[in-house]
Amino acid sequence: MAYTVTPWEVSGDIDYARLIKDFGTSPLSDVLLKRIEKLAGGLHHMLRRKIFFSHRDLDILLRKHEQGNTFALYTGRGPSGNTHIGHLVPWLFTKWLQDRFGAELYFQITNDEKFFIKDLSLEETTRLAYENALDVIALGFDPEKTHIFIDTEYAKTLYGIAAQVARRVTFSQAKAVFGFSNETNLGLAFWPAMQAAPCFLPSVLKKRKVPVLIPAAIDQDPYWRISRDVAPRLGYEKPAAIHCVFLPPLQGAGGKMSASEAESAVFTTDSAAEVKRKILKYAFSGGQATVEEHRKLGGNPDVDVAYQWLRFFEEDDSVLAQLYKDYRSGALLTGELKMLLIRKLTGFLEDHQRERERARKRLDEFLLRD
Amino acid sequence: MAYTVTPWEVSGDIDYARLIKDFGTSPLSDVLLKRIEKLAGGLHHMLRRKIFFSHRDLDILLRKHEQGNTFALYTGRGPSGNTHIGHLVPWLFTKWLQDRFGAELYFQITNDEKFFIKDLSLEETTRLAYENALDVIALGFDPEKTHIFIDTEYAKTLYGIAAQVARRVTFSQAKAVFGFSNETNLGLAFWPAMQAAPCFLPSVLKKRKVPVLIPAAIDQDPYWRISRDVAPRLGYEKPAAIHCVFLPPLQGAGGKMSASEAESAVFTTDSAAEVKRKILKYAFSGGQATVEEHRKLGGNPDVDVAYQWLRFFEEDDSVLAQLYKDYRSGALLTGELKMLLIRKLTGFLEDHQRERERARKRLDEFLLRD
Repeated sequence: MAYTVTPWEVSGDIDYARLIKDFGTSPLSDVLLKRIEKLAGGLHHMLRRKIFFSHRDLDILLRKHEQGNTFALYTGRGPSGNTHIGHLVPWLFTKWLQDRFGAELYFQITNDEKFFIKDLSLEETTRLAYENALDVIALGFDPEKTHIFIDTEYAKTLYGIAAQVARRVTFSQAKAVFGFSNETNLGLAFWPAMQAAPCFLPSVLKKRKVPVLIPAAIDQDPYWRISRDVAPRLGYEKPAAIHCVFLPPLQGAGGKMSASEAESAVFTTDSAAEVKRKILKYAFSGGQATVEEHRKLGGNPDVDVAYQWLRFFEEDDSVLAQLYKDYRSGALLTGELKMLLIRKLTGFLEDHQRERERARKRLDEFLLRD
Repeated sequence: MAYTVTPWEVSGDIDYARLIKDFGTSPLSDVLLKRIEKLAGGLHHMLRRKIFFSHRDLDILLRKHEQGNTFALYTGRGPSGNTHIGHLVPWLFTKWLQDRFGAELYFQITNDEKFFIKDLSLEETTRLAYENALDVIALGFDPEKTHIFIDTEYAKTLYGIAAQVARRVTFSQAKAVFGFSNETNLGLAFWPAMQAAPCFLPSVLKKRKVPVLIPAAIDQDPYWRISRDVAPRLGYEKPAAIHCVFLPPLQGAGGKMSASEAESAVFTTDSAAEVKRKILKYAFSGGQATVEEHRKLGGNPDVDVAYQWLRFFEEDDSVLAQLYKDYRSGALLTGELKMLLIRKLTGFLEDHQRERERARKRLDEFLLRD
């Protein structure tokens, strides 16, 4: 089945194993998972379930960590709309990495990029950037170790580093990696350098070589190719990366959740009633057409969106295994499964929304500004 | 005769009248000069002598000025080497404009551009930027009304404005104006937006529409085409411009003085002995082969570099006219003419160098930083 995965488009039924080959990344092997488990004192459920499934140079990064060279984390957000729960997937995992490895996090919010590629004003992407920052802070990152920056508000520092990258990348190379054309605007043409800059920011700020690990969805990988090409020429380490799959949209038809299609996603600011309505109405069901048939034939959790979402958000493996079994056997109905997801999400979002409001007064603890 | 005039190359025997047609600018008419004279209470000798010879929308700018809307000045420097006296030509004229029109000056030093196009590190172009800034300050600009900024040190402000420009210009358009190719690096690809940004900076800082006049050598004109195209779409006025010819190099063979060819130029930091040596040794002479022939046939001031330089630096028209006459008749020898130039320049440079050293402690009075 046809699919597309680029930093600007994800659609179709994604073959993740094929993507590893096409992108030239490495699968997250059991050997590597054991090593993470040993160092971290456990494995995050998104690792156990291969939601994070691919990497670049994670083995090299872990070796440096074992030798005492603590890495920094770098991830980010393109503020084209409100935050939905799909965005939280790599961030929740990033928080776990910070907790377990004591790593500092550099979090880039790319209000410039979204202005360059969307029909949004810079004022609007900046407003959204601040809204999105609240969601990051709400997840409980350590303010001592977490540095959030909005591109245009940290542009003095970023531009200085981006210039070093940009000097060493031709438009032709950017064309090949990002599919730019002659009609690409000059802002977007430069932008790969702005996205590469944070790979080297920890080293610049700390005045020593800091290895960087990027947890992100797999579609963001092309950016790091530029960073990785340029790193040795700048005297820095190549950034390592760990990639996750996409949280499927409510409709379940492949691709990723989209902030611009409100009915495909649950947003972090949705009310409990809204979450319930969306899931009951839109979540694609792997069940049978009638209760009778479902009891007799059982459902298919592998395509059921409620089950798929619980793979991301239910941390307890035994609970999840039981749900899988019961849905397969027909003991658990689609409506019941959906209610379990609704309870899980609304519980999570209740806490999140409280922390998110509290974060409005905490921005200064986290924001890097020039 | 073939010649090339682009922002990055000036060579050959330049036909300035032709350039006005090719660039689509307007000649500085006598009517317009009269209007400037009336408003400024006189005419700078570089206007009287058509050293400034071309413009864009200067008439519109003056009308606004007459209506009480004072304009701002914008010019700059690409710090690829030390300042030579050719660089001072538009700056000296800019100072006159500031004095006569009470205009604020925004002076951009493009350490990023020179890093993108030359084999120089960003550290080196930044060092040169500070050295060049001393030459600007030394000319006596009003510290209350003069704002010098080095691109990477004011990048937060500039990037925000440049992003608005960059969003509205495609790589294809930049190719057509600047001769970019696919091998152009991403820094340079974005850079036209960084150079356009100061056209709108006064309006952004003052939070009202400030008309801008750009005094610069004619080779810089292409940049303003981008600014002028974009201005109405950003809700700003198109920047006006006034263009000068190039101070000829010592060798006199057309083109412009080059900071990278030390023997073609007199630098602002050259000693009196060095100035004397360079002019006596290198300044192309319009005189005859022997004193006897010169006395009999006379010299040609129109190709004599000493005379040509005096057109730029000797303010007194009657003195200049007398020199022209005496050189034509043979009464004035090349050696004598060169000594007059040497005295003029060394006198000027003695003052300049004193002010230049004093400027090292005055940088904070002038520099804009984020």
